[in-house]
Amino acid sequence: MNSARDFGIKIGKLPTGATNNIADIEGLSFGQVTLSEGKVQTGVSVIHPAPDSVFENKCVAACHVINGFGKSVGLMQLKELGQLETPIVLTNTLSVGTASTALVRHMLAGHEAIGETTGTVNPVVMECNDGAYLNDIRGLHVSEADILNALGQHDAQLAQGAKGAGTGMSCYGLKGGIGSSSRQIQIKQHCFTLGAATLCNMGRLPDLQIAGRKVGAEIAALQEADQTSELGSIIIILATDAPLTARQLERICKRATAGLARTGTQFGSGSGDVVLGFSTSDRLPHTAGSDAILQRQMLHEDHLDSLFAATIEAVEEAILNALFAAETTSGKHGRTRVSLSDWWPGLS
Amino acid sequence: MNSARDFGIKIGKLPTGATNNIADIEGLSFGQVTLSEGKVQTGVSVIHPAPDSVFENKCVAACHVINGFGKSVGLMQLKELGQLETPIVLTNTLSVGTASTALVRHMLAGHEAIGETTGTVNPVVMECNDGAYLNDIRGLHVSEADILNALGQHDAQLAQGAKGAGTGMSCYGLKGGIGSSSRQIQIKQHCFTLGAATLCNMGRLPDLQIAGRKVGAEIAALQEADQTSELGSIIIILATDAPLTARQLERICKRATAGLARTGTQFGSGSGDVVLGFSTSDRLPHTAGSDAILQRQMLHEDHLDSLFAATIEAVEEAILNALFAAETTSGKHGRTRVSLSDWWPGLS
Amino acid sequence: MNSARDFGIKIGKLPTGATNNIADIEGLSFGQVTLSEGKVQTGVSVIHPAPDSVFENKCVAACHVINGFGKSVGLMQLKELGQLETPIVLTNTLSVGTASTALVRHMLAGHEAIGETTGTVNPVVMECNDGAYLNDIRGLHVSEADILNALGQHDAQLAQGAKGAGTGMSCYGLKGGIGSSSRQIQIKQHCFTLGAATLCNMGRLPDLQIAGRKVGAEIAALQEADQTSELGSIIIILATDAPLTARQLERICKRATAGLARTGTQFGSGSGDVVLGFSTSDRLPHTAGSDAILQRQMLHEDHLDSLFAATIEAVEEAILNALFAAETTSGKHGRTRVSLSDWWPGLS
Amino acid sequence: MNSARDFGIKIGKLPTGATNNIADIEGLSFGQVTLSEGKVQTGVSVIHPAPDSVFENKCVAACHVINGFGKSVGLMQLKELGQLETPIVLTNTLSVGTASTALVRHMLAGHEAIGETTGTVNPVVMECNDGAYLNDIRGLHVSEADILNALGQHDAQLAQGAKGAGTGMSCYGLKGGIGSSSRQIQIKQHCFTLGAATLCNMGRLPDLQIAGRKVGAEIAALQEADQTSELGSIIIILATDAPLTARQLERICKRATAGLARTGTQFGSGSGDVVLGFSTSDRLPHTAGSDAILQRQMLHEDHLDSLFAATIEAVEEAILNALFAAETTSGKHGRTRVSLSDWWPGLS
Repeated sequence: MNSARDFGIKIGKLPTGATNNIADIEGLSFGQVTLSEGKVQTGVSVIHPAPDSVFENKCVAACHVINGFGKSVGLMQLKELGQLETPIVLTNTLSVGTASTALVRHMLAGHEAIGETTGTVNPVVMECNDGAYLNDIRGLHVSEADILNALGQHDAQLAQGAKGAGTGMSCYGLKGGIGSSSRQIQIKQHCFTLGAATLCNMGRLPDLQIAGRKVGAEIAALQEADQTSELGSIIIILATDAPLTARQLERICKRATAGLARTGTQFGSGSGDVVLGFSTSDRLPHTAGSDAILQRQMLHEDHLDSLFAATIEAVEEAILNALFAAETTSGKHGRTRVSLSDWWPGLS
Repeated sequence: MNSARDFGIKIGKLPTGATNNIADIEGLSFGQVTLSEGKVQTGVSVIHPAPDSVFENKCVAACHVINGFGKSVGLMQLKELGQLETPIVLTNTLSVGTASTALVRHMLAGHEAIGETTGTVNPVVMECNDGAYLNDIRGLHVSEADILNALGQHDAQLAQGAKGAGTGMSCYGLKGGIGSSSRQIQIKQHCFTLGAATLCNMGRLPDLQIAGRKVGAEIAALQEADQTSELGSIIIILATDAPLTARQLERICKRATAGLARTGTQFGSGSGDVVLGFSTSDRLPHTAGSDAILQRQMLHEDHLDSLFAATIEAVEEAILNALFAAETTSGKHGRTRVSLSDWWPGLS
Repeated sequence: MNSARDFGIKIGKLPTGATNNIADIEGLSFGQVTLSEGKVQTGVSVIHPAPDSVFENKCVAACHVINGFGKSVGLMQLKELGQLETPIVLTNTLSVGTASTALVRHMLAGHEAIGETTGTVNPVVMECNDGAYLNDIRGLHVSEADILNALGQHDAQLAQGAKGAGTGMSCYGLKGGIGSSSRQIQIKQHCFTLGAATLCNMGRLPDLQIAGRKVGAEIAALQEADQTSELGSIIIILATDAPLTARQLERICKRATAGLARTGTQFGSGSGDVVLGFSTSDRLPHTAGSDAILQRQMLHEDHLDSLFAATIEAVEEAILNALFAAETTSGKHGRTRVSLSDWWPGLS
Repeated sequence: MNSARDFGIKIGKLPTGATNNIADIEGLSFGQVTLSEGKVQTGVSVIHPAPDSVFENKCVAACHVINGFGKSVGLMQLKELGQLETPIVLTNTLSVGTASTALVRHMLAGHEAIGETTGTVNPVVMECNDGAYLNDIRGLHVSEADILNALGQHDAQLAQGAKGAGTGMSCYGLKGGIGSSSRQIQIKQHCFTLGAATLCNMGRLPDLQIAGRKVGAEIAALQEADQTSELGSIIIILATDAPLTARQLERICKRATAGLARTGTQFGSGSGDVVLGFSTSDRLPHTAGSDAILQRQMLHEDHLDSLFAATIEAVEEAILNALFAAETTSGKHGRTRVSLSDWWPGLS
């Protein structure tokens, strides 16, 4: 699996986490199901935010909508309560309903109280439209079993490229998919890690920038330019072990916009660009205890700048990693998306 | 079917539309599927905003989240674009995924371009938790076929009470369900109609107010008070034939809050209270024509006050109509929710 | 000074604080300057949120815009940081600039670091338009000296009625002004207080409701109806000693909408209805200390319902108190606004 | 006055307007007052959005807060109504109150109805903190006369660099100030222009990027690095002659974020980064006419992408123009900010 660093491209100044992957945040695990056969080029990716029940002990969470032409579910309640209470499922746009139902089943199976002695559950499912080029999205090929299969996996690392939900995605007219990156930040005596995972399906080829270089223009000169407007999307997931309030996490989510912008996109009108961030620190119990008051930790606001820098770097690099990791893929109507890794050696 | 006016209760000063129902806005039609047997007390309600394809000619639309403890889908894009492009489906919280998938299938069947030569589609599904008291919501009893069945109906009137999505709902500790009301407004030479449809599942009995009277306290004295906190929700749909921008419609949606407040609820922390409004006037073509500029009409801002008044009155009365129309219903665990119509004659 | 309770009107079920005034939250103090002579009917009210420097130790704060036809300043930063760092100044709409400058001078005088070794300061000034009926607002009669005078006062109680910023306000076609109320809430072993202060300048007489009774219609029958549309506004300040995050405080601020709605207004298009809430608990140091992590307390989300109920009751009663406390006042063009206290005995 | 293009730097692909200045949008005019003497390094800039009264015929407008650590006034109402009804005044942070009062006086002088027979007026004043380095901001050196002086000017072009409100600003550790740029867009048979004006006071030197090149790192190697965190801000004003709704303009404002991001900043926690956009097309009459319905034009949503591209290019270039145009300036404490134009020839 290629990464941007394999090609000598380094984004920013901060050190990466141990594996330069969102997996560097302790406690996360991952599941992916890839459906890749002929015109079916789609799949599912799951991020488990914690090793134990995130319903019983919720993660502080926030989101930011860069451009709302998207169909993600679960963000209204996540924003209201500042809480994430399920794993995050990523899939194609028209499979969101199926994924939502499967995630509900998964949560019901693990928690007898839901819908009975406590309230319901807020499934978080996010999406991009892989039907814009490669996948027969009208076929609704993702099944509840596929989602449950992905939910049942607990891989230690998030595999990147044309895998899981990234299988059929396009990005800057090239093959898109799943990317990830992480950064470490030292704040006084504390060392925190922030990681980004991106499902990349946005951008037009002429706009692509890599570390400031207008690479898209160079490649566009080599191949017939992709003339379509942006019908894509990008989902950006941020995770950190720093103790933050939901308001602070929302501020961090907003900085993902800068990382995204530096890869060249204009957040096209038809591109659903959405950021979700959560902290694994200081989780919130579902049930109020004998004392109604929770003891919490919170980073002083003056130290957020470090996390902002980490976010921007990790998001920009995660997008590039998606492009370099995604292998050339063919799909419906005999269409093919070429990997950036295939183009790169031929560029001056 | 009882209504508030059957009991002499009249809300506000404005005249109602011809049938005092959201159906008074021309072009709307409705579908409902009721699942009522033993512990299964749930269903589906559909509002078709137009007689023709709302995907090809979209309705200007807006939404307002009074309290975001809810799982409605489709609002992010609706807000971004100010457009509604599917029928609105109402159902129980955990069936949102199924409803979403069925609504996608319904849209795919009618539009070959979706997911192929144009983008995807943004299904709008809204919900309340009928599992808090009467329905076996964990059973996921609503099927795709039920949703498609409701989508296939085009009734001229929205049936109220314990029907469709309202079948298993509770409201102020009484039987809740579907309610509706409408108002006419004269603005200079123009006569506009605004209607409200409400799926009512919120409130605690001691808080109930009817036309300013603290009825809940009187009934609470008669029966053992319902001690649970609010785990309910209310979905409020507003429709009008006045020509408005999405921004103006959002301002109108915010006034629904006042109508809701006057029935006594405090918008409980666990109650997902969400408003969606749309206009049937001046629809927006999916495809840009030969000229890129649309000719539009827009009510002058100074005249919005009339629509605000109509909204507040219609919402308050729609909620009361839901309470009076909903018949006493039994469901899971041998539980029963009594109709307000049963209590009313016994009150002083 | 009359209050609603003097006339037998009691709102809600919760006990009030010791003085039924926002002053029941420990640490608050108040200043008011009244300019009442002929056509000049205006003034200034100040709420000091803490006995010590709120710049050095900021209050967690939030706001909610019910209707944004208003000119309050300071809310953008307050929302971004969840912090209040100055006293709150209330005055008339066109004097906001003067008040802002005076508040800046006040802060500069007390803090040498501002604008030199630290950043600037975010003055919070809120307003209603007393020029709609009584005050010669075009004369800009409030001076910086008036603002500084009010800022220099530290009264233990917030005086209500036609005083300070309330001097020239109108409300429901009657004399408006400053009102206040408070509630106590027991949450497990903790007793918290929440108080509301309102600057009332909104509403049309026919819409007035008092404890559910359509009083406005009764009074309107007695006097020539006020035909003007709403050009008013209401500012609602909430204070509590409960430990909350800014996100939770925003949820509380949203509930003020229900208290306001129950007095009859429709949040008219031209009425700037704005809520600001802050907590005196667990203040936030301006400067990050040797450890970057703050130890915080936070109420469990399930207990917010108690604070919601307190908010709604306190806001509704604070508005009624403003109406009953405000004495009949004459102003520009020989106009007079009559006190509700004058009308009340004559109502059946 | 230098510009980026004088140094061979060209941003993007779209053609500029006739003068590559926001002045290319017909009807705009400008006023500036510069206070530059010793420790006083500040001033005022005014953008008149129309040659006639913008109060009588308002501009459709929107705003977007990238980071809300700022003290701009007027945005709450601008957002609620989607209208701009005064000239836009730019100045330093602590002079916002004075500017607001002067702008109110300016509007009162021109409109006898304000505060008397119609409502009040919503002054729009935006700011950056020039006191972070060069200006004695605590001295409050901007007077009402200075503001009125700037308001009285109607220059055909917006002068760039260390002028007006830009006099004392710093940007990326260099001299900041006012910048501008414009783009032309052909949409079917229509040619529209979009212009950006920026008041630049943000960024740290090591972060500066120019057309993708990490210039800041090169300059930082030459001079002692500026270690301070971001206490700056940027105000971005967008103007266009395309017919748009406020919702569409808000979408355009959000794209300014990408142009800003590409110059290297991370939207630092203490940087108030705010965008305001308006259209000169299809203005909105203050008073509703004999018909309550306005006839409007609106660009089809599918064509917004062109305006997004124009926005991003114009904002990025406007910021660079501010840097190149601003001459080396000295201010308080003997401090000096060097112009980028002075550094540029020495860079490899």
